[in-house]
Amino acid sequence: MSVETVITGLRSLLGDRLATSNAVRDHHSHDSSWHPAALPDAVAFPRTEAEVQAIVRLCAEHDVAVIPFGAGSSMEGHTIPTRGGITIDMRDMNKVLEIRPEDGLAVVQAGVTRKQLNTELRATGLMFSVDPGADASLGGMASTRGSGTMAYRYGTMRDNVLALRVVTADGQVVRTGSRARKSSTGYDLTHLFVGAEGTLGVITELTVRLHPIPEAVSSAICAFPDAQSAVACVIEAVQYGLPMARVEFLDEVAVSNVNSYSGLTLRVAPTLLFEFHGTEAWAAEQAQIVESLAEGHGGADFVWTADAEERGRLWQARHDLYWATKARRPGCELYTGDICVPISELAGQIEAARADIEASFLEGQIIGHVGDGNYHAGYLVMRDSPEEMAEAARLAERLVERALQVGGTASGEHGIGLAKLKYLRAEHGDAAVELMKTLKRAMDPKGILNPGKLGQAG
Amino acid sequence: MSVETVITGLRSLLGDRLATSNAVRDHHSHDSSWHPAALPDAVAFPRTEAEVQAIVRLCAEHDVAVIPFGAGSSMEGHTIPTRGGITIDMRDMNKVLEIRPEDGLAVVQAGVTRKQLNTELRATGLMFSVDPGADASLGGMASTRGSGTMAYRYGTMRDNVLALRVVTADGQVVRTGSRARKSSTGYDLTHLFVGAEGTLGVITELTVRLHPIPEAVSSAICAFPDAQSAVACVIEAVQYGLPMARVEFLDEVAVSNVNSYSGLTLRVAPTLLFEFHGTEAWAAEQAQIVESLAEGHGGADFVWTADAEERGRLWQARHDLYWATKARRPGCELYTGDICVPISELAGQIEAARADIEASFLEGQIIGHVGDGNYHAGYLVMRDSPEEMAEAARLAERLVERALQVGGTASGEHGIGLAKLKYLRAEHGDAAVELMKTLKRAMDPKGILNPGKLGQAG
Repeated sequence: MSVETVITGLRSLLGDRLATSNAVRDHHSHDSSWHPAALPDAVAFPRTEAEVQAIVRLCAEHDVAVIPFGAGSSMEGHTIPTRGGITIDMRDMNKVLEIRPEDGLAVVQAGVTRKQLNTELRATGLMFSVDPGADASLGGMASTRGSGTMAYRYGTMRDNVLALRVVTADGQVVRTGSRARKSSTGYDLTHLFVGAEGTLGVITELTVRLHPIPEAVSSAICAFPDAQSAVACVIEAVQYGLPMARVEFLDEVAVSNVNSYSGLTLRVAPTLLFEFHGTEAWAAEQAQIVESLAEGHGGADFVWTADAEERGRLWQARHDLYWATKARRPGCELYTGDICVPISELAGQIEAARADIEASFLEGQIIGHVGDGNYHAGYLVMRDSPEEMAEAARLAERLVERALQVGGTASGEHGIGLAKLKYLRAEHGDAAVELMKTLKRAMDPKGILNPGKLGQAG
Repeated sequence: MSVETVITGLRSLLGDRLATSNAVRDHHSHDSSWHPAALPDAVAFPRTEAEVQAIVRLCAEHDVAVIPFGAGSSMEGHTIPTRGGITIDMRDMNKVLEIRPEDGLAVVQAGVTRKQLNTELRATGLMFSVDPGADASLGGMASTRGSGTMAYRYGTMRDNVLALRVVTADGQVVRTGSRARKSSTGYDLTHLFVGAEGTLGVITELTVRLHPIPEAVSSAICAFPDAQSAVACVIEAVQYGLPMARVEFLDEVAVSNVNSYSGLTLRVAPTLLFEFHGTEAWAAEQAQIVESLAEGHGGADFVWTADAEERGRLWQARHDLYWATKARRPGCELYTGDICVPISELAGQIEAARADIEASFLEGQIIGHVGDGNYHAGYLVMRDSPEEMAEAARLAERLVERALQVGGTASGEHGIGLAKLKYLRAEHGDAAVELMKTLKRAMDPKGILNPGKLGQAG
């Protein structure tokens, strides 16, 4: 069998860095999603780009699937080897190769995680801003076009990847982009790979943008009578040109969960949590402006703080929300929807999602990166309950359908993975999906790169 | 002959909106560059996307070239029909279709120009920020991935195009992107067309981002002992996190030209011209911070103003620089180089470019969008002098070679067009250029879209 030939070849190339044990294969059979696991035939742990090339070439020669794997924190099943094959775990390609403070950029191997990079940046006064919940690898974050809480101000992975090195399906290394902040030379290959979910190539190296750590940071929290008022406040702040570093929405259920888990006494109501970056005067002024805007929209209990400890406690509560929610129902998991709409439509979407939850037998909460129009509904489910899983899927599907009706997108930051392939045509139209397939066929004619996913299915 | 069949077919489709007169063909035979003119066989003026589709289909059927044409303001020969064919002039597709102030976006036909859009935005408090020198069409600006003086703060066309409608080589309409600010669903087709220079499709419609007009604007100007000091000041401001709306560099020759043309008395020295946007306090604070940074780098004659008239006079002088320079030598033209480098390398590149000019028999000046590391060297030439044109080409070539040596790019904002095709391999490597050709073949197998340019040559 051809996969056995590949495994033999890879073993002689990688030695014990080619794993076929059940434990290692099992670890790479699933991700952070609820999708059914599927085992790879083997897992390779390359240390160099040349090894990645050799792995891809050998797999291509024998028509064996190649699944790039970062930290395994995908929420949509991206790394599940639904057709078996060789998973390439980039764990050992974890070096920060270069930091250039004057140019505000870093060059890293694809297995470097966002927290690792920020740790290595400590002495520079710079930060890497993209912050999905998990400590994801930068290769994985680029592949899903990830973002997080600071995207409104600092951009998503689309905005923060300047250049890539990618091993394509024929085993060649393609360099994309440059170290210049902008360029008008040729097709934008960088952005073709960002968001391609490992189906067009294996990212081995990224040049990413860094941002100065702000001189001053201030936070504010404010409760609103309803989601509509909260979003209207944010829209005004956006129209004012306020560069909010973070603006997070929590619905009343999320606030209640935070209160009980983190021992806070926030008013149980739709709430906005802000962070402002700037000079001391500017961070304070932004908070003042938001306070006056919030007042106009019925905002109550506005609390502003520049104190690091108090701020830390507030944001820690937001970060602990996942655990706070799970604590409500021992053994449950959070089935998470992720959509993004034009901000003028956000309040209506959140209210409809809330109404769906009220009408369902499941509990759920809604949070959002409001500046982007991106929100997540999380449903508390027992994974072994088919009824609950089906109900969560039904609710999540309604989120997407409503988002597409108003010109939004089926995923703001988690990606397509497996379950959202079916929405591609509704969102982009037949011609765009056929074009995606044309690109996939042109770049990976044998279909060995993360098969059955983006570019092939949908 | 097949082109005659196409012309007959287009005439019955478009009536007198298909032009074959020498005057119209001549108007579409050249652009704002020095590249030799070439006549299209005919020029079509469609009014609808369906007409664009019909034109492309007919041309595809008969293997006739299609050249998309916006305002004709390309600096690199993009729209010159080097192989004849049908030029599609988008002039009559000039409607602003929708403005959504709450979502900060506008939907426009591809022939809308940037000034037209800003005029139509007047009542909204919003602006379209991308400002190349010319009043270019938005379709053209997207196709060359254009930018201008405000890209450091507000981004280039890459950052400001949210969605597109594009007629591809098979006459289909592909919709890309959505109205959401971010998305993780599928290959990034939007950015494949942005910068493709009309070789992958004809853009018919764009959804672009708008930005709030700032409450307050302040400007500052400051002279420096040398380019090194000026750039060092900007690097510090970047590292401080100052969101400069504009930061323009003028070398001593440019300043001298401005003085004599606009009746100013600026100190003749390398100079930075800043603009700050924000609240009144924040715009003023930014200027104060820059003043103190400038002092540390030998900055002199720092002048700051929030007065609209004074500011207008200063920036008008910057905008008139093209005419100021041409006025130095009656009948001359400005042969313009356009490169972009990591900002840490900018001062060295500017100084080397300056030294080249000193050693040459041509006059020249250097200006730059310093925040981006993007600069232009302009050489005063008589177009009918082969010696002068050859010398300007030699100097411009040296700019590119030096930029590529330090990880920069052959074009910051003007694009590849004709003359820069030869640098593609040096900048991106063989594998990337071959991948570009693979994409071109997959999307335009007959090679009818703007042939002989990006994706085919290079």
